[in-house]
Amino acid sequence: MPAPFKADPAFDAGSVVACDWPLCQVRLQDDARFPWLILIPRRDGLHELEDLAAGERTALMEEIVRAGEAVRVLGEAAGRPVQKLNVGALGNVTAQLHVHVVGRRHDDGLWPDPVWGRGAARAYGANGLQAAVSRIRLKTGPAPAK
Amino acid sequence: MPAPFKADPAFDAGSVVACDWPLCQVRLQDDARFPWLILIPRRDGLHELEDLAAGERTALMEEIVRAGEAVRVLGEAAGRPVQKLNVGALGNVTAQLHVHVVGRRHDDGLWPDPVWGRGAARAYGANGLQAAVSRIRLKTGPAPAK
Repeated sequence: MPAPFKADPAFDAGSVVACDWPLCQVRLQDDARFPWLILIPRRDGLHELEDLAAGERTALMEEIVRAGEAVRVLGEAAGRPVQKLNVGALGNVTAQLHVHVVGRRHDDGLWPDPVWGRGAARAYGANGLQAAVSRIRLKTGPAPAK
Repeated sequence: MPAPFKADPAFDAGSVVACDWPLCQVRLQDDARFPWLILIPRRDGLHELEDLAAGERTALMEEIVRAGEAVRVLGEAAGRPVQKLNVGALGNVTAQLHVHVVGRRHDDGLWPDPVWGRGAARAYGANGLQAAVSRIRLKTGPAPAK
């Protein structure tokens, strides 16, 4: 029996779990500057896209698109509709395979640079964070089972 | 009949066409700091992953993995094996849908930051560029038809 999935504890420093999708744990980055989700395929020992089976990669691609829809919902809710999605699988800091899906605007303060490694996060605050998580769940599915 | 595919001329400033795969034009970024390919799906009017049909997205994911293999070949040839792949679909500067696949090393000078928008490219020079393109074609397929 495979080891149960566990997200690297490093993700806890900057993000919270919003829900589980068929393949990925979906996390909301706690940074109100950008609507920003992180998808972590729920299998242990993954570092590169090639570590997934082809069918899982297809599932990941579809969850990336779904995350883009959720990010757009968050942007609308904040009165700042997303103008461009940025998708990145880097893993230079935290090696466990994960994909960032970030909503960008021309006036977002970092445009056109990437968001990774730039500037300090602006936390949502507890109420804002919970509201954003609720919007993601409404759009995409319930909270993960404990 | 659909308009013939055309890569945004902005790509010509920093990269050359290496080959065509079933979905994408494959370009080599002319930056010897990193083995770096750019995949451009060969359909007009694309900006986001969601603009592709689901089957095309699956094909794109597989070509991303294939590009990663080619990037590893380039890294080996340069005596600098790739330690981590970075994959990004941003489009903040050039809006036409494209995916970067970049080979990274802990000693590459920008690690762990992303490569986009950082530092000046170091051109291969004509011979180095042609050698790298040849390696990509050997690994993955012939030059595109004219």
